[in-house]
Amino acid sequence: MASVFSKRNGRAFVGGIATSVPGSSLRTAIAGVGMIGRVHMDAVRRTGAQVVGVSASSPARAKEAAAALGVERAFDSSQELVTSDDVDVVHICTPNDAHAALAALALRAGKHVVCEKPLTTDAATAGELAALAAESGRVAAVPFVYRYHPMAAEARERVRDGRTGDVRLLHGHYLQDWLSQPADTNWRVDAIAGGPSRAFADIGSHWCDLVEWVTGHRIAELTATSRTLPRAGGTPRTEDAVQMLFRTDRGATGALTVSQISPGRKNRLWFEIDGATTSLAFDQENPETLFVGSRGENAAVQRDPAVLSPAAARLSVVPGGHPMGYLDCFAAFVRDVHAAVRGEAPAGPPAFPTFDDAARMVRVTEAVLASAADRSWKEVS
Amino acid sequence: MASVFSKRNGRAFVGGIATSVPGSSLRTAIAGVGMIGRVHMDAVRRTGAQVVGVSASSPARAKEAAAALGVERAFDSSQELVTSDDVDVVHICTPNDAHAALAALALRAGKHVVCEKPLTTDAATAGELAALAAESGRVAAVPFVYRYHPMAAEARERVRDGRTGDVRLLHGHYLQDWLSQPADTNWRVDAIAGGPSRAFADIGSHWCDLVEWVTGHRIAELTATSRTLPRAGGTPRTEDAVQMLFRTDRGATGALTVSQISPGRKNRLWFEIDGATTSLAFDQENPETLFVGSRGENAAVQRDPAVLSPAAARLSVVPGGHPMGYLDCFAAFVRDVHAAVRGEAPAGPPAFPTFDDAARMVRVTEAVLASAADRSWKEVS
Amino acid sequence: MASVFSKRNGRAFVGGIATSVPGSSLRTAIAGVGMIGRVHMDAVRRTGAQVVGVSASSPARAKEAAAALGVERAFDSSQELVTSDDVDVVHICTPNDAHAALAALALRAGKHVVCEKPLTTDAATAGELAALAAESGRVAAVPFVYRYHPMAAEARERVRDGRTGDVRLLHGHYLQDWLSQPADTNWRVDAIAGGPSRAFADIGSHWCDLVEWVTGHRIAELTATSRTLPRAGGTPRTEDAVQMLFRTDRGATGALTVSQISPGRKNRLWFEIDGATTSLAFDQENPETLFVGSRGENAAVQRDPAVLSPAAARLSVVPGGHPMGYLDCFAAFVRDVHAAVRGEAPAGPPAFPTFDDAARMVRVTEAVLASAADRSWKEVS
Amino acid sequence: MASVFSKRNGRAFVGGIATSVPGSSLRTAIAGVGMIGRVHMDAVRRTGAQVVGVSASSPARAKEAAAALGVERAFDSSQELVTSDDVDVVHICTPNDAHAALAALALRAGKHVVCEKPLTTDAATAGELAALAAESGRVAAVPFVYRYHPMAAEARERVRDGRTGDVRLLHGHYLQDWLSQPADTNWRVDAIAGGPSRAFADIGSHWCDLVEWVTGHRIAELTATSRTLPRAGGTPRTEDAVQMLFRTDRGATGALTVSQISPGRKNRLWFEIDGATTSLAFDQENPETLFVGSRGENAAVQRDPAVLSPAAARLSVVPGGHPMGYLDCFAAFVRDVHAAVRGEAPAGPPAFPTFDDAARMVRVTEAVLASAADRSWKEVS
Repeated sequence: MASVFSKRNGRAFVGGIATSVPGSSLRTAIAGVGMIGRVHMDAVRRTGAQVVGVSASSPARAKEAAAALGVERAFDSSQELVTSDDVDVVHICTPNDAHAALAALALRAGKHVVCEKPLTTDAATAGELAALAAESGRVAAVPFVYRYHPMAAEARERVRDGRTGDVRLLHGHYLQDWLSQPADTNWRVDAIAGGPSRAFADIGSHWCDLVEWVTGHRIAELTATSRTLPRAGGTPRTEDAVQMLFRTDRGATGALTVSQISPGRKNRLWFEIDGATTSLAFDQENPETLFVGSRGENAAVQRDPAVLSPAAARLSVVPGGHPMGYLDCFAAFVRDVHAAVRGEAPAGPPAFPTFDDAARMVRVTEAVLASAADRSWKEVS
Repeated sequence: MASVFSKRNGRAFVGGIATSVPGSSLRTAIAGVGMIGRVHMDAVRRTGAQVVGVSASSPARAKEAAAALGVERAFDSSQELVTSDDVDVVHICTPNDAHAALAALALRAGKHVVCEKPLTTDAATAGELAALAAESGRVAAVPFVYRYHPMAAEARERVRDGRTGDVRLLHGHYLQDWLSQPADTNWRVDAIAGGPSRAFADIGSHWCDLVEWVTGHRIAELTATSRTLPRAGGTPRTEDAVQMLFRTDRGATGALTVSQISPGRKNRLWFEIDGATTSLAFDQENPETLFVGSRGENAAVQRDPAVLSPAAARLSVVPGGHPMGYLDCFAAFVRDVHAAVRGEAPAGPPAFPTFDDAARMVRVTEAVLASAADRSWKEVS
Repeated sequence: MASVFSKRNGRAFVGGIATSVPGSSLRTAIAGVGMIGRVHMDAVRRTGAQVVGVSASSPARAKEAAAALGVERAFDSSQELVTSDDVDVVHICTPNDAHAALAALALRAGKHVVCEKPLTTDAATAGELAALAAESGRVAAVPFVYRYHPMAAEARERVRDGRTGDVRLLHGHYLQDWLSQPADTNWRVDAIAGGPSRAFADIGSHWCDLVEWVTGHRIAELTATSRTLPRAGGTPRTEDAVQMLFRTDRGATGALTVSQISPGRKNRLWFEIDGATTSLAFDQENPETLFVGSRGENAAVQRDPAVLSPAAARLSVVPGGHPMGYLDCFAAFVRDVHAAVRGEAPAGPPAFPTFDDAARMVRVTEAVLASAADRSWKEVS
Repeated sequence: MASVFSKRNGRAFVGGIATSVPGSSLRTAIAGVGMIGRVHMDAVRRTGAQVVGVSASSPARAKEAAAALGVERAFDSSQELVTSDDVDVVHICTPNDAHAALAALALRAGKHVVCEKPLTTDAATAGELAALAAESGRVAAVPFVYRYHPMAAEARERVRDGRTGDVRLLHGHYLQDWLSQPADTNWRVDAIAGGPSRAFADIGSHWCDLVEWVTGHRIAELTATSRTLPRAGGTPRTEDAVQMLFRTDRGATGALTVSQISPGRKNRLWFEIDGATTSLAFDQENPETLFVGSRGENAAVQRDPAVLSPAAARLSVVPGGHPMGYLDCFAAFVRDVHAAVRGEAPAGPPAFPTFDDAARMVRVTEAVLASAADRSWKEVS
């Protein structure tokens, strides 16, 4: 193995594993120690930064988690954590309804913030948080991490450099199955705890953020239908599926299916971009290749730093043929956020997603719900 | 090779190659000798029926074609062909604008008719032809041949027998690239010759026919956007792409992208059906497998007569692992049509598509154009 | 549909469906009406040639088959059929043990012969038949039909024109599962009826013929292991699986696995050719694409006449995206054989496989059996 | 995202990210800071353990690396590092020729050792090291990390629990392209620095270790060919490719192609196991699914903790549909090694590969070279 690594390094690696955030002395703390909190912890540790503390739903649970995870300090509350003097960066991984208040508290305490999505469940609050972040001068990031798949970055470069040609059509889907059976439930099904939109806010927003980021287009108006199944305990107010048409500010049209009730689909985020010269298709479940269609031969471009554009090669921390995955995206996102915290110039695209991006997706979500209610086209501000 | 064939035959083959239309003494004639006319000829010959004559754009061209194709008789005109006493079944493969008149002439002359699609380019005429066919008592068929892919038939059976559960979401695309460049042109681009809809009438109609046939649902209302690119010689009136949302009569919702400007996509007809229990996905470019998704293991069901339902096994004329293709679908379609001409009880599903089905797709097409014009939802009658 | 067909025709189609054997007045007869006999019949009819008669295991069965298949004449015996004055070309589709005698009889009677494989089960007889064919001046062909997949032909052209570079490594497998269970049996399992080799003679020979044809290399020496499972009724003398290493006359080395006991594998013929510049991989179960690997981007070349070499485009009788299959290969093979019968110059590669090719594969088979017996390397003459 | 994670957690996650090595106070040091050294560092940090020091080719380079990587201490030499009192576990990531001496030194100093492969380049030394490790009572591990792909573990469980049936045939390949061009070179090409075997020792050994581990079979004898291309500077003594046949101690037969000269293949480790009931195929470049073939429907089992066996679910640290990759395997391997260092009972399979396993693969490598030299079968001790 060593040989391929060294060879490839000589040829193509720019940054590589563990090196882009050298000697991080950043002190981070993580509010919330559920699975997603541990994903953040994994990413933070990979950068070499310290996790100095955690909080949980109770002081006792926080202590238990700190011991189990090898973290020094257990905060009594997330409020205490996000305002602690010992901490430079806070990662907010609590249940959704606590996101906004904790993020505001942290920003006001001068912390840099990484807040799980959805930032909030209404556009007004999201806008206020984005404004607060701007005023604070602190880094305020949201993990739309699919931007950090190297081949998604490669797609973006191929749009930017003109190889794709004018983008004409956008289409795809984001499908899961974990709520496909009547007995399936989760706190997210409840509109009070999880907000008025479920499938779209949870996963549709990822698709839209990613496709907007790759293409540079913005969804300008849309029309949508939504679908909600009866469940044990009644029909929830949050939708199981959304299908929508849209137009972008730069003249492309699109169609999207979002569903949490598609049996066998675990996390199928798939998009296709049809440009004047080539088409690009990306499947998050098979993220090591990018389909590039043309009137000549079609390519299945493999993630190989030797042939990728610099922006994608930068994210390729292992040689081609050694699959990268979800946690690698997450780590790259955190690495970039921490670099920004230290005031470093960005090493290159992708720009990490900010509270502004998150607020934009809340606005798209509101337009989807409004259109699904009255079947008309809605503009997105 | 022989061994697999005989073994599999013993286990599973019901009909098999060349046997379901025994000793056909049917006399057929083919109006139009372009590529699609030759596809019909290939299919007819495979059934064992005779091609007694052809017509072309001129008597001279017809003579030339008859000689080249080994056909006895060259008709001076398609009108003469479709009314000839020597002919039992006529296949109409002329340019689109002649379809309706020839089909009517043939039916009135007591012929059975296989007419290329689009049957007509307006719903009123299509309805009249369907009515005429009904009155005539003759077989009147239209080659929506994708119904004859065994795995599409398998999908249908898995909906019908309840294994899929209630159908909730339908989505997919039908993508081609042959008109993706400004210089690309074709008589179909011209609305006068080809009718007011291009992409949807040509290929979107195939998707809708296939998905309606597989699910048993009917598209009840829809909303659509369309896209037309400038070309050499001006922007045509016929659309390059359609994206649409729809609802069915039985409560499913859907999203569809249809395009003739997607580089690298040759004939990508892909659909997914998300049911309560499983999802089914079919890709016409890889028609030997059917994706069956579930909360347990996902299956890639291979076309193997030994494991398919009888309706799909009937269409599997070679053993699994020996790919079947487009021309095999076409031949199976013609075989079923000829069997009906001879008055035989159908050997099983699929029911071949009739003028009624074609007329229905013309109505769907009109609804698409109307919705794309005013951005509202339209009912489909 | 019509539009794509006409457009593509204008751009790329050379021959197309049903046209390369114009006005065939050839009279053919088919000895044997099992599944593979019907495959031959389907192919013959597609060329426009006549099937004037069939024979079967008894006169009564022949009559029945003739009626069911729409064939005029039932011969009392295959001997009568292959010597009949009414017949130009005979297709021998009987059980294996009758192949050699019928082929010799037919050649001596001045017939052109298409004989199912294995031509014989011993190299000496095969050589005599090949010599007899040469003396006779008649066409003598054997259906190693995988040569007729357009993308296999494309692979060959890419070796011949130098794009692949020197061929270094050959590897792959040919896997089936129809004899994987102890109760599975078939006349081919019996060495007396089917010959001393089963898996290799049946399918291994296909792989070797195809790879030799694509690369222009010849297997010069080999070493092999074989595997035979006990079955109901005892352990047969014919092998279930062969694994072998080989060297070619032009300096490539190879490895091959052949098996009829690989569950879930229906007819998986897969090969990879590693050249100095690119690698080529072909999967007979997905024959519409050819993998072309390189140090730059990898291509999944689709079967599209517009981008293929002329030799492959010639075999592409339908546009890209409309899958071609096994029966299309078979029809193309018969079309070429019949053209040779009529004395026409070949329209292009592939050259159809002859009795010489078949005799060569019998010699390879004998070397495999000899090596498996004593574990040493064997030369192939 | 959070929702899927928590839901799945509730249903299926056993351990999950960052939790199986709680509060690791282990002090590790990494000798060698090339790419593979950084892969080790990434894995160590993810467990929560500390990297207290690094060494490099010179004291200056070590200092530079320590600063860049955020590591406290730079050792002047690897010898100093592996014997330092401050260190519990040493990771040896130096060039190959230093492996053996450093590993011995470390074991004798009472350290636990993770040593990159190849442990040594001759079987005698490897055996001595394995014996030394056994005597020392320390953990001595070698990163044959592909064992840690969840779907490879799933394959193993399906062999162990009888669902696969008796294993009959093994076949596959391990292909790379980074040495396919004459100008490609690397220290590994030189037999003095890299040892007498290159392709097989580097990657063939991975395939054999993985397939032996999955099946529980041991390669008992083998015969091989090898291939070496001329390069700039002469033909090297180390081989570019190996093809081999083998028999296992439990009666299976196999065929394998190993190559570093297959254009377009980056790291294609693919194997198929043909059992009496099902076949299993795994592709390291697409490690999220396992092909399970059977006479009924074929399955593409997705990595979803909810449906996997406990041994594979344990390694699934993120929900299905969120791809795991090479670095996740590596981290899981280190997590298990560190757990063993702490004296914890193993959480479950896989057992991490030890010096014994590495010594075994050196013996297989020697048999391959010996057989390639004289073309005979060789036993593996």
